[in-house]
Amino acid sequence: MTTFSVEPCGIAHTPYKSEGDGPIQGILRPGIEARLELFPPYETCLDGLEGYSHLVVLFVFDQIPPDERKFRVTPYLRDIEVGAFASCTPHRPSGIGMDVVRLIRREGNVLVVAEIDMLDGTPLLDIRPYIPRFHHRSEATVGWIEGKIPERR
Amino acid sequence: MTTFSVEPCGIAHTPYKSEGDGPIQGILRPGIEARLELFPPYETCLDGLEGYSHLVVLFVFDQIPPDERKFRVTPYLRDIEVGAFASCTPHRPSGIGMDVVRLIRREGNVLVVAEIDMLDGTPLLDIRPYIPRFHHRSEATVGWIEGKIPERR
Repeated sequence: MTTFSVEPCGIAHTPYKSEGDGPIQGILRPGIEARLELFPPYETCLDGLEGYSHLVVLFVFDQIPPDERKFRVTPYLRDIEVGAFASCTPHRPSGIGMDVVRLIRREGNVLVVAEIDMLDGTPLLDIRPYIPRFHHRSEATVGWIEGKIPERR
Repeated sequence: MTTFSVEPCGIAHTPYKSEGDGPIQGILRPGIEARLELFPPYETCLDGLEGYSHLVVLFVFDQIPPDERKFRVTPYLRDIEVGAFASCTPHRPSGIGMDVVRLIRREGNVLVVAEIDMLDGTPLLDIRPYIPRFHHRSEATVGWIEGKIPERR
């Protein structure tokens, strides 16, 4: 199948400088702010986003070299091995990350957000509104991670 | 910034053959089943996914030629124009789509799922578990789409 290519639309400015700095999920450190800077041609793509409280952001795990991507991983603080698609590992085969973030405000081509786990300098691929009717699954049940989600980290 | 490239990890087999066939969001036609076929090297990435009821799937809007991607769009049945990042348009600049889907069962390298809106033949980029603690935002509020979400379509 054809390789898929995409130009990053922006860059994340965050307090997390290297893999050990960030939380395993942004929601675990909800008070930390970050700035998502869109490159100038993409500023117009943000119009209308101001009314939403939360966004879904796709980005590149660019600090993980392609040869460190893994098909199977041992999750944080666990002694089991699972497939990369059964985990939120940054070492995923695609190299693509996803965060649900809270939008604090827009400043032109910059989104000030919280609930983020991206490292500083992360290339952004896409942003979309988080819409409960489409994205909530209140009935969702979880697999191996049940009972093992840390309060912090 | 460097162009980002990724190899698709699989292909979707769905009843939706062209853009007009599918729902605007999979959750609006929850009973329709589809099959996500992972290419053989990626089968091992699925191990451990069986316990999860819902997944997040990233894919390519490969039926939309790159020159039909848009920075601003007029949403379905609306008379306003918004930025592509303030909408779920398939004509988005990145060409990347995201679905939250319900996992019915795994059959080896195939995931049988529902709540899907991908077209048949869609290249898959990534799959991850849907984890309420990380992905739910019960307090989320929406912008321009408020009061305008169709029950079906």
